[in-house]
Amino acid sequence: MKDEMLKLGQHARHASRAMARAEPGAKNRALEAIAGAIETQSDRLVEENARDLARGRDNGLDAALLDRLELTPPRIAAMAEGLRQIAALPDPVGEISGLRYRPSGIQVGHMRVPLGVIGIIYESRPNVTADAAALCLKSGNAALLRGGSEAIHSNTAIAECIRQGLESAGLPADAVQVIGTTDRRAVGEMITMNQYVDVIIPRGGKSLIERISREATVPVIKHLDGVCHVYIDDRADVAKAEAIAYNAKTHRFGVCNAMETLLVARGIAEQVLPGLAARYRETGVELRGCADSRALVPAMQAATEDDWHAEYLAPILAVRLVDGLDDAIEHIAAYGSGHTEAIVTEDYTRARRFLREVDSSSVMVNASTRFADGFEYGLGAEIGISTDRLHARGPVGLEGLTTQKWVVLGDGHVRQ
Amino acid sequence: MKDEMLKLGQHARHASRAMARAEPGAKNRALEAIAGAIETQSDRLVEENARDLARGRDNGLDAALLDRLELTPPRIAAMAEGLRQIAALPDPVGEISGLRYRPSGIQVGHMRVPLGVIGIIYESRPNVTADAAALCLKSGNAALLRGGSEAIHSNTAIAECIRQGLESAGLPADAVQVIGTTDRRAVGEMITMNQYVDVIIPRGGKSLIERISREATVPVIKHLDGVCHVYIDDRADVAKAEAIAYNAKTHRFGVCNAMETLLVARGIAEQVLPGLAARYRETGVELRGCADSRALVPAMQAATEDDWHAEYLAPILAVRLVDGLDDAIEHIAAYGSGHTEAIVTEDYTRARRFLREVDSSSVMVNASTRFADGFEYGLGAEIGISTDRLHARGPVGLEGLTTQKWVVLGDGHVRQ
Repeated sequence: MKDEMLKLGQHARHASRAMARAEPGAKNRALEAIAGAIETQSDRLVEENARDLARGRDNGLDAALLDRLELTPPRIAAMAEGLRQIAALPDPVGEISGLRYRPSGIQVGHMRVPLGVIGIIYESRPNVTADAAALCLKSGNAALLRGGSEAIHSNTAIAECIRQGLESAGLPADAVQVIGTTDRRAVGEMITMNQYVDVIIPRGGKSLIERISREATVPVIKHLDGVCHVYIDDRADVAKAEAIAYNAKTHRFGVCNAMETLLVARGIAEQVLPGLAARYRETGVELRGCADSRALVPAMQAATEDDWHAEYLAPILAVRLVDGLDDAIEHIAAYGSGHTEAIVTEDYTRARRFLREVDSSSVMVNASTRFADGFEYGLGAEIGISTDRLHARGPVGLEGLTTQKWVVLGDGHVRQ
Repeated sequence: MKDEMLKLGQHARHASRAMARAEPGAKNRALEAIAGAIETQSDRLVEENARDLARGRDNGLDAALLDRLELTPPRIAAMAEGLRQIAALPDPVGEISGLRYRPSGIQVGHMRVPLGVIGIIYESRPNVTADAAALCLKSGNAALLRGGSEAIHSNTAIAECIRQGLESAGLPADAVQVIGTTDRRAVGEMITMNQYVDVIIPRGGKSLIERISREATVPVIKHLDGVCHVYIDDRADVAKAEAIAYNAKTHRFGVCNAMETLLVARGIAEQVLPGLAARYRETGVELRGCADSRALVPAMQAATEDDWHAEYLAPILAVRLVDGLDDAIEHIAAYGSGHTEAIVTEDYTRARRFLREVDSSSVMVNASTRFADGFEYGLGAEIGISTDRLHARGPVGLEGLTTQKWVVLGDGHVRQ
């Protein structure tokens, strides 16, 4: 197993050098060709996927997991369309910025370059294979993809389309390698091959991500919790507050940028909370409140300490009254996960303080936390949302899969 | 020990929040006050340093180490001057960039923010205590500093000046904590306190850095080898080639950006190598060449495979003839450490290819590798040079001690 993985790593490293110097046109032709192969081989993808589904049913996978695993013709078409959208994005590689003359006479600037080899570890959805491959390819990286064992036939079939596309564009087929074994030790090797892998991006449940962070010696870009807060300040516009708090909770429940705790300043609670509570109830959202908020909305259950820490990913919302901005910032610092927080206020100074003092990957004024998303931010696509601090923070698009090197231009300059 | 370190970590985390929102004026006043305290307490620093020196002599430290350890009045004045220079740099924290309207109507951009708590582990030079503290402070971070045990009295005395300066500016004294114990287990705790430390920067010998990278669970920004190359292309200007190759090797020997291997295209070797070899010999540089280069300069020793890997940090130079650009790029990919490489050429296409295809933290055309330095690049100061790929690459200044979060400004916007 170790030898097999080292061989894949070696191939990836070798391919990464060709990818780093590949022209934008070649990369885009590969993406178009992969999209074409996925479309023309749609029937085969459905067949291979049927094998995964059958085995999944035999193994007793639940309906939600089977749904995530399934490839239908419309889903396959959407996968191809996603590839074409990534082809249409600007190429980040080679961009030179900040080239300035220094007193010594040299010109110094930055050039954007690929990270090298990116290892992506993910769970059931087979479309991640195409998405992740496309983002790595477009950003000039080589990729090692390790999907869930339950999707192995689907992923292998998609990998074959990717291989064909790369070859038809004259790029190394090893630029994207899907790990074909379901042996779990492969992951252990992949996350410790520091000589061949530059960064690991795990996508999936919290236990997967925690295990990988703990065991990896390769740097990891990861997403842990999304315990997002909306704070309604006592100088909020009530209509905006209701719209944002309602949208942040109910637009989608199972997503990391959904609000999980609503903080309301005491001075405005009586005005906004009863109305909001009624709207939440109509939508089937269960409310769990502090004692003070329950005095205003007696139908709420009592929140426990655990509720302030909870990422429900479900129609449940924790509600707490706070004294004001300082109290809200303290609550977020104590219980938040550093993902996304929003303030609703018309007060200029408080808005500025919230933006500056809340330490999260996205901080917002008068907008729904649901906007924390690569597409909404204009990245064109996203490989994930990072809750780490180093390198990439928040939604990670093509730029997050690159780094910068220094370029120095001289005319025979030497150091005095 | 564990409890003690966790307490320091907790204090650092707490102080980091106050530092993140500190005004530029307060941070600069603290830096000026620290500089003042260092100057007025110069005598005491010399006394405390004398204790370290005496113990160092008793423990048989060699002359070079004792020299690095020594604080003289001029060195103390330089330390204070360094603090004032850092105070004069622009404050990186809070800078908002790229704020753009999205089709949804929200405005999205980046805000530069501190990393949080930075742990710095270093060896003998006590001036690093003041330098590192100043860079962390200016960039809005809290710092945990762990110097060499041989400098413990000097570092503790400098720490006291830092504490006074922070307090006089109304900033938390715990924003810079110098670890007062010489117990080696303190390092082990520091590099695994992920809840309290956001990044570790080791500065010192390779064995220290390797040990820390291996054992740390906190992300590390590090500098390993500097096996730097100059490639003299056959379309080089001979005068520029000689000036650059001579300067890159002989300007200083013991520095990471000194050239260690000179690659010369066969087509120009006869023109440049004998003259250069004579100049190197006059300066006392020992040359170790491949068979082909020795045919041109018979006085050279024969290089072995080890020489292509060597970071001499000494007046020794490996010399190899190559067929041309491709061969040079291959040699650098095989033996380089990704630090700094330069091409000397008048050929436009080859210069462009070298810049794009050589994967090092600094790539240069017609300039000496000795320019790879934070001051030369205009960073104002540097905490070190990173040979890592993620987050910071090459010279790391104040910006490398910060990260960016997303800011979103709306007017009641919700996701459709």
